Amino acid sequence: MKWREVDRQQCSVARALSVVGDRWTMLVVREAFLGTRRFEDFLEHVGASRNIVADRLRKLVDADVLARRPYQDAPPRYEYKLTAKGRELYPVLASLLAWGDRWMWEDENDRPLHLVHDRCGQRMSPQLACPCCGEAIDPREVTAVGERAS
Amino acid sequence: MKWREVDRQQCSVARALSVVGDRWTMLVVREAFLGTRRFEDFLEHVGASRNIVADRLRKLVDADVLARRPYQDAPPRYEYKLTAKGRELYPVLASLLAWGDRWMWEDENDRPLHLVHDRCGQRMSPQLACPCCGEAIDPREVTAVGERAS
Repeated sequence: MKWREVDRQQCSVARALSVVGDRWTMLVVREAFLGTRRFEDFLEHVGASRNIVADRLRKLVDADVLARRPYQDAPPRYEYKLTAKGRELYPVLASLLAWGDRWMWEDENDRPLHLVHDRCGQRMSPQLACPCCGEAIDPREVTAVGERAS
Repeated sequence: MKWREVDRQQCSVARALSVVGDRWTMLVVREAFLGTRRFEDFLEHVGASRNIVADRLRKLVDADVLARRPYQDAPPRYEYKLTAKGRELYPVLASLLAWGDRWMWEDENDRPLHLVHDRCGQRMSPQLACPCCGEAIDPREVTAVGERAS
């Protein structure tokens, strides 16, 4: 199977990865969540080449993850903002952040960012919970029901 | 910046993506969570070429996400199981699944899998919660504190 066919796999994970499974794409999405709007700022912060950043922005607009809107007429300039579909990638991003925080630093004091939950004021790392019973999710207590993904 | 330098970025998201940001890698991880252990079964279910699957398994072993253990001597055969580091990728996988479920199907009845929380018996889609106060996470109520990722 070619990668471009993965969006037709009968699996939601595969279909999600067909949009955000590219290596640089999630860094563009990270930037959008951190408030970056303009091409030159994405370029600076993502760290990929101009061609790659332009390509990933275009694909994320095509996928309705980012919306592209003019902010200047002469010369024409555009900014990029997360759509509702894009904003719902937050759990993917937060989970990558938490995993990277946990496993990718020799000294956790070197980590540059931490998250504060404004509602309770605590520094925290979001965790998965069941929206029905509210308990934290242990993967061993979750059953995937249905046809086998392939 | 080249992709192979991303693991040195001062950002946990970038460092996490240096391990699992590859397009096929998360499908290999998905398979491991679904119980796949042996090379030929990964090959069948991931849908990539033999070379790609072998390469991603090797990289996941090198990154200590999967552990490779012999299960047969003659001829020698190995199986792959998630390590503790690998099991903690569950929130990334579950979040990709939830997003794919939500946005990548025209008819939600076509989705092949759903998740049941054994503890409460409910069909559910895990959501992010604050481990301190227990409330569901709204991204607009989370502040990233510290130096800017770059």
